[in-house]
Amino acid sequence: MKYKRTFWVLGGDMRQAHLAQLLAADGHRVFTYALEHGAHAAPDTMAARSLHALPEACCVILPLPVCGEGGALSAPLSDEAHPLCDILVHLSPEQVICGGRLDAGTQDLFARRRLTVHDYFAREELVVANAIPTAEGAVQIAMEELPVTIHGLQVLVIGCGRVGKLTAHRFSALGAHVSVAARRYEQLAWASALGFSTLLTQQLKDDSGRYGLIVNTVPATILDRDALAGIREDSLIIDLASKPGGVDMDAAAQLGRRVIWALSLPGKVAPVTAGSYIRDTVYNILRESGK
Amino acid sequence: MKYKRTFWVLGGDMRQAHLAQLLAADGHRVFTYALEHGAHAAPDTMAARSLHALPEACCVILPLPVCGEGGALSAPLSDEAHPLCDILVHLSPEQVICGGRLDAGTQDLFARRRLTVHDYFAREELVVANAIPTAEGAVQIAMEELPVTIHGLQVLVIGCGRVGKLTAHRFSALGAHVSVAARRYEQLAWASALGFSTLLTQQLKDDSGRYGLIVNTVPATILDRDALAGIREDSLIIDLASKPGGVDMDAAAQLGRRVIWALSLPGKVAPVTAGSYIRDTVYNILRESGK
Amino acid sequence: MKYKRTFWVLGGDMRQAHLAQLLAADGHRVFTYALEHGAHAAPDTMAARSLHALPEACCVILPLPVCGEGGALSAPLSDEAHPLCDILVHLSPEQVICGGRLDAGTQDLFARRRLTVHDYFAREELVVANAIPTAEGAVQIAMEELPVTIHGLQVLVIGCGRVGKLTAHRFSALGAHVSVAARRYEQLAWASALGFSTLLTQQLKDDSGRYGLIVNTVPATILDRDALAGIREDSLIIDLASKPGGVDMDAAAQLGRRVIWALSLPGKVAPVTAGSYIRDTVYNILRESGK
Amino acid sequence: MKYKRTFWVLGGDMRQAHLAQLLAADGHRVFTYALEHGAHAAPDTMAARSLHALPEACCVILPLPVCGEGGALSAPLSDEAHPLCDILVHLSPEQVICGGRLDAGTQDLFARRRLTVHDYFAREELVVANAIPTAEGAVQIAMEELPVTIHGLQVLVIGCGRVGKLTAHRFSALGAHVSVAARRYEQLAWASALGFSTLLTQQLKDDSGRYGLIVNTVPATILDRDALAGIREDSLIIDLASKPGGVDMDAAAQLGRRVIWALSLPGKVAPVTAGSYIRDTVYNILRESGK
Repeated sequence: MKYKRTFWVLGGDMRQAHLAQLLAADGHRVFTYALEHGAHAAPDTMAARSLHALPEACCVILPLPVCGEGGALSAPLSDEAHPLCDILVHLSPEQVICGGRLDAGTQDLFARRRLTVHDYFAREELVVANAIPTAEGAVQIAMEELPVTIHGLQVLVIGCGRVGKLTAHRFSALGAHVSVAARRYEQLAWASALGFSTLLTQQLKDDSGRYGLIVNTVPATILDRDALAGIREDSLIIDLASKPGGVDMDAAAQLGRRVIWALSLPGKVAPVTAGSYIRDTVYNILRESGK
Repeated sequence: MKYKRTFWVLGGDMRQAHLAQLLAADGHRVFTYALEHGAHAAPDTMAARSLHALPEACCVILPLPVCGEGGALSAPLSDEAHPLCDILVHLSPEQVICGGRLDAGTQDLFARRRLTVHDYFAREELVVANAIPTAEGAVQIAMEELPVTIHGLQVLVIGCGRVGKLTAHRFSALGAHVSVAARRYEQLAWASALGFSTLLTQQLKDDSGRYGLIVNTVPATILDRDALAGIREDSLIIDLASKPGGVDMDAAAQLGRRVIWALSLPGKVAPVTAGSYIRDTVYNILRESGK
Repeated sequence: MKYKRTFWVLGGDMRQAHLAQLLAADGHRVFTYALEHGAHAAPDTMAARSLHALPEACCVILPLPVCGEGGALSAPLSDEAHPLCDILVHLSPEQVICGGRLDAGTQDLFARRRLTVHDYFAREELVVANAIPTAEGAVQIAMEELPVTIHGLQVLVIGCGRVGKLTAHRFSALGAHVSVAARRYEQLAWASALGFSTLLTQQLKDDSGRYGLIVNTVPATILDRDALAGIREDSLIIDLASKPGGVDMDAAAQLGRRVIWALSLPGKVAPVTAGSYIRDTVYNILRESGK
Repeated sequence: MKYKRTFWVLGGDMRQAHLAQLLAADGHRVFTYALEHGAHAAPDTMAARSLHALPEACCVILPLPVCGEGGALSAPLSDEAHPLCDILVHLSPEQVICGGRLDAGTQDLFARRRLTVHDYFAREELVVANAIPTAEGAVQIAMEELPVTIHGLQVLVIGCGRVGKLTAHRFSALGAHVSVAARRYEQLAWASALGFSTLLTQQLKDDSGRYGLIVNTVPATILDRDALAGIREDSLIIDLASKPGGVDMDAAAQLGRRVIWALSLPGKVAPVTAGSYIRDTVYNILRESGK
């Protein structure tokens, strides 16, 4: 068999292991490194013991996030520490280097060696795709936590961005009565066009008492003490917003409201699919790089 | 407050406790009996210590199934044994008596005292309604067990009856590619009209290799050794069929196929909703009885 | 090219012409007869001038209905009269003979010659399939007649059989708020499970004032004078029920209610698709006949 | 009855007449002007004969577009000419003045008198809302023109903006197999998340042969001679793109491809709904203006 390209997949969690396997399944030659405990999920790849063959890689895929503690590669499935600078010395500008969620320091490190790192996590197509497992994860949590069916449930989704739109869509598709709260008329027009009831976030307090499930997608404290006080006691709140989240957690605890703050769902509920999204995005980066 | 009617709810599991509470929430006077450990879920009902006021009930609701071991009332949430005959002596033909899944012996017991028991579980509207939490339960299991999203998944649903139709609908609504296998052309026409791909169950063996999830709803061994051999190793099989089920479990074990036999999902995944379906059906029975 | 089978397609309207062409496109040798003015739609078939080669047909497809005026073949696209008995003499029991909607007299005529005619129109898979273009036809009429969008429209569908279920589904899919009225609790359970609001047909009068569109599918006078009086003046009523229909037309005219009685939609709105359903059904009949 | 506010609705087509009636139905005092032949659709409004009471209006709604031929108000339903400057002299900065699609000249005219005109047609919530009747209009045209059902149809939607997304959604909801072509990976990710197949517009030529219906939403000549040559002869092309449209019409005519260029669908297929969108947008403008 002739391999199409040579990929190196370094560090990261199970998503990275699945990504390596998916690349191999597409006919590529794939080396993994600093991924020892994920090896069982990537049977068609080769585990590299050293970095000396890394320069032969056409494309190098660093994890999400790239940098862990102390300037080392983020590598939770490896027993050893892997300083980023040890890896950098084997890379060259001819290679397509990809990584997820690069902080300024890391970007600087690469720039000083005239290396460009493509941040796949900053690409809109990945962010949109990740909204799919996020929405499904919200459905799964609701199914597990609530003693009622999604069918017939009164659901409020706060926010009408990517995650908000898809979350509303999934619950509605299962037969829930879905309302979407948003700040801008334009977003409400979208929510209405897609078949949901709508309300202005500003009017949330007057309306929050009738929902059995509230899913927040906005990273701002929408569900403050006042709003929480108006919510039914048997309601479930799922907060999908990244830090600082959208719920006043202290107030929720005092009022006895049930809140589940669910972060990073794609890697948790569907690691293989999440890996495939990174693969697709890397392919797009390669195509745009002319490789 | 004036109560509308007096109900007695006897024995059963959490569904029965939720049912009692739902009746109370509708404004009825509700007594529970032999349901001690479910009392927390029915705060607006009265726990009866004896049966002497049972004759005052307008409607008596026995559990699903009515009869447990040794001729006693099925009462898993009670510490004591409650022989059915002790209950029977307090009932009269003027009362509307309901129970779920009556065996011939139990029916005979009631008939000898000239009592009619309405079997709510034999009524089509309850069977159809129960298909909703059953389908949702299948979705929940698939989400929990598979490392991929439902979106984009190749799903095969075997059977196009109540559970088959709704299961196919729910997976499709979440973005899966759903095929339905059925024996009769008429069922395939239904599956097609609802938007699913179709195949004759007879041709299943030639086609089974491409599904990531197979949900069986037919209580006959469709997935025998031959069919199982053709299924992908990483496929998940969810069997929703009542006994004897639809999978040759020995063959599946030998071939290393992953099978989850999921029975009685409504009471497990959505006990409150399942209780509300029984309530609705009891209301229908009362209306038909002219009460 | 080698033909698979020889079909003769006799009489009928454009559906029959499209059917002939679809059979030819599947690789069969197809003769048409008494279909002259539909020939342009069946360019890959041969127009027979006489019946002398009819005995060579493996399968003979008579139109829907088979019998027109005066014991002749129903042949609106032919200039001549074709007495059925002239055709019968060329048929033999070895051939698979299909026809649509056979009356008792016609059936008797064939039986006397020991010929079995398979009535494709009596087969459930065709009836279910025909509900698809019927439902689409109702959507098309509503779009053409109403000055508002289907999205957001309050729609009432009366009846929850094949046509009722699919009609409700299509309008709901386009964003309408759909209620289904049915007589039996079981049908209401189905309607609810599929995501529609429900009401008992018996309670229709109290509720009929809020709908912008009412689609009837039940062949019994549900919309009598009383019910019509309660309907909004700007409502549109589409009656899909076969004779006698579901609307008191005199009362509707007097009350100024707008009613469109839409019969035989499949052949009108989607003749090619309607022809393909007959083809599929004929294939099923052939398979069951062991041919 | 006490009126809430006083509106003047000037000029325009039937949408404007419906808008006037909808405002009146909401409890406002509404005058129409230069709308004589639309008066029957606005029975609860008052037709003003002169402009002398116009200064009493709280809100003045000019048509879409505001300006017709020769600097006059666009007023196709009036027999007379109404120079814009005659109207302007009666307006003051205290009034909320709304109009649709203002050209630079008109805007300048108002600015010189220190009048601000809010262009409702430039507001995103109206543009999104109008995508609903546009998508429905495309469905209606397809149903009217094609001899097959939408169910089962292979549909290609070009573009994944507002109209593209909703058009794909509606056809898919009716059972069509929908592919979406877009230029950017991000848009393809959206199309995929919403359940459609996807292809890059750049690859359209290789794929265009399998569609029975192609709906273009992109105002650039995507369907040039080459692309058109690859399309099936019996395909229907609906072009929803504003000028210059997306189809090489000369090439289409020469190749015998069937193209329908459908512009301004909202006002044509659902004038009442289109009027209600303008009403909602005007309400939003009033709210933002603190009135």
